[in-house]
Amino acid sequence: MAKLPIELHSVEDIAYAEYLFDKFYAVGSTGTGGVTRLGYTEVEDEMHEVFRQIGEENGYAYLTDEVGNSYVCNSDEQGYYLIASHLDSVIEGGRYDGVAGVIAGLMVLYWIKKNGLTIPVRVGAFRCEESSNFGKCTIGSGLITNETYKHDVGEAVSKAGKTLAEIFKERGYSLQPKRIRGVKEYIELHIEQGKVLEEYGEKLGIVSTIAGPRRFMLHVIGQAEHSGATPMDMRNDALCGAAEIITEIESIGREEKMWKSVATVGVIQNEPNALNVIPGEVTLGVDMRGVDTDSLERMENRMKSSAKKICEKRGLTFYKEKISEIPPIDMSRDMQEGLGAVAKRLKIPHRIMMSGAGHDAMSFANICDTALLFIPCDKGVSHNKKEFATIESICDGAIVIYEYLKGESI
Amino acid sequence: MAKLPIELHSVEDIAYAEYLFDKFYAVGSTGTGGVTRLGYTEVEDEMHEVFRQIGEENGYAYLTDEVGNSYVCNSDEQGYYLIASHLDSVIEGGRYDGVAGVIAGLMVLYWIKKNGLTIPVRVGAFRCEESSNFGKCTIGSGLITNETYKHDVGEAVSKAGKTLAEIFKERGYSLQPKRIRGVKEYIELHIEQGKVLEEYGEKLGIVSTIAGPRRFMLHVIGQAEHSGATPMDMRNDALCGAAEIITEIESIGREEKMWKSVATVGVIQNEPNALNVIPGEVTLGVDMRGVDTDSLERMENRMKSSAKKICEKRGLTFYKEKISEIPPIDMSRDMQEGLGAVAKRLKIPHRIMMSGAGHDAMSFANICDTALLFIPCDKGVSHNKKEFATIESICDGAIVIYEYLKGESI
Repeated sequence: MAKLPIELHSVEDIAYAEYLFDKFYAVGSTGTGGVTRLGYTEVEDEMHEVFRQIGEENGYAYLTDEVGNSYVCNSDEQGYYLIASHLDSVIEGGRYDGVAGVIAGLMVLYWIKKNGLTIPVRVGAFRCEESSNFGKCTIGSGLITNETYKHDVGEAVSKAGKTLAEIFKERGYSLQPKRIRGVKEYIELHIEQGKVLEEYGEKLGIVSTIAGPRRFMLHVIGQAEHSGATPMDMRNDALCGAAEIITEIESIGREEKMWKSVATVGVIQNEPNALNVIPGEVTLGVDMRGVDTDSLERMENRMKSSAKKICEKRGLTFYKEKISEIPPIDMSRDMQEGLGAVAKRLKIPHRIMMSGAGHDAMSFANICDTALLFIPCDKGVSHNKKEFATIESICDGAIVIYEYLKGESI
Repeated sequence: MAKLPIELHSVEDIAYAEYLFDKFYAVGSTGTGGVTRLGYTEVEDEMHEVFRQIGEENGYAYLTDEVGNSYVCNSDEQGYYLIASHLDSVIEGGRYDGVAGVIAGLMVLYWIKKNGLTIPVRVGAFRCEESSNFGKCTIGSGLITNETYKHDVGEAVSKAGKTLAEIFKERGYSLQPKRIRGVKEYIELHIEQGKVLEEYGEKLGIVSTIAGPRRFMLHVIGQAEHSGATPMDMRNDALCGAAEIITEIESIGREEKMWKSVATVGVIQNEPNALNVIPGEVTLGVDMRGVDTDSLERMENRMKSSAKKICEKRGLTFYKEKISEIPPIDMSRDMQEGLGAVAKRLKIPHRIMMSGAGHDAMSFANICDTALLFIPCDKGVSHNKKEFATIESICDGAIVIYEYLKGESI
């Protein structure tokens, strides 16, 4: 008979993890199976409020910082382990992205208390990890680690049309917060958001490198004219030009596949977007990722030259804005080895792998030893209402973190 | 010395036409050179209020009908000439589209009064000719002429998210109004919204046929997934499929150019439209127009089969909705001849031509003799803040209508 994962965890452990998951469940529900919990909105506040309640009902201290991140702590001493992730989501996203890591942290706190240990741990919940609201990612963790690429984040505009600077002013937050202190090691658990673990039948991924996203806005400007009265050969249709650019970016990504790079047009804005007007102006939001800097460079250059060529041919104006660039970031080699040894001891099938997605762990790699663990998610689906992971998987990852910390703190 | 157009019109006539134009000028101004006066909104109401004031300051009767169209009349007798156009605009449109025709009608009234004639004329201002607010065109004129294609218009949803039925209920309008009665002939003046007159150095177009628009919403459904963690060969990207469809529709239009057909994707909606999510669902709004029914049929069929093929290849789901279809509509041959004879007598260079754009005149062709006149607009630009026509051109068209009516009513 095959070994059931339940053997690793007691019924009480699973029940407590389920209790934690259910506490967050209803917040930001879209009614169609997904959740929308955009960063720095009231829905995200509600998630942090649930987090606070969980902390307080267990007698832990609850802290917030100057940018609205929050922490549940079993100790006020410096030199603590920070187990963290985020509580915001994309638009119509799932319930595991981010939340799984916060639950894993709370499970570690629970086991430490249950077993009477004194390992200093803070569980962190960061603000606005997703770029869905401001077009910029890992805002909460980036600001408190003073990442240079966060310096112009105040100008970023939310879906509702407010700048982050305005929102911070209203909330009394600071765009120049003090750098977080006292973190001994940073550990994050996250759903994989890909299909690698599922394909290999493994339960845990230990991340070696996080792919560096480069993001762009491409502007294509033509001439808005009457769609009925303008012959096909007298048009400068910005959307037709943008359509060629979209398929070209897809080809660029496909050709760099062997370097594990990807290229995606996720955003399109069309003006004036009316049935009887030839599109006059289109903006495309592009996301390129990879662990190989040469490949990223090639993709960026090819996108630029192809888009210019397409627009010249069509009598369109083109310009490109780079809105962010994060280099590929390596995780702590020592922690990879330590966590791998624990997984091996617990007989949890695992692998060392890269992360295609960005995570809050990126922000910490420069200030302390940092680790990122992946658990499988169903069919690799994420950023989607069909996102699913098991509570057992969350507990698998959490127990590896707990056993690792026990070893570390001896 | 070349003949100046001013010789056709007195300084007083031009000054009065300018006065009329200025009355409408500020309404719905976007501050960037254009206007947004969407049908069945408060901005459009304001245009009708200006129209009412102009009528009343000249002692004309002012009427409204059951759908909010309004009329300035010099007589209450039946068997009147209806000179009309519309007062709404597209988003960020120009100040001549529609308004030029209403001003032309007011000029005709002015000359009739000035010269002490008794030709019964109503100047009409229709509601919501543009499809920019509800995705459906000529709503005001279509309803009062009981055009069959307007029967389901109540379900149409405005940009602000309300159905036309809800808006009509709030305003006390009727979706089943009485059919307009007593119209002897219908005459509309409109800017060309194309470059034909300008290219040939002509001052007036007399329209033979109005192209029939066919409109579609194309739905492309893929899988929304994480843009960083989903390899290029595991994607079902709805936007990449839609991009191929957009360029295909452009090719279809280009290949039917010799039949004077056009095909345009004016609208695109992308879900969830976030930088870090592969697009899961895209909707395209398509507008096809032509005077040749076979050509329209070929374009529709080819669009359908190409889009299906593109989506099958990419593992995307595709379906097509036809949201409207208006057949090509012929104008009155007698009126074309009568108006042409007047233009010839006045030495105004003119041509018989087709209309690629739809107009309120389409609604009247089935219920009375109907004519449509075009005046040039700068570089053919329309549905754009750069739209421009001269006041002299409006007066050229208006004087042809006035002289034509004088001849008719003898």
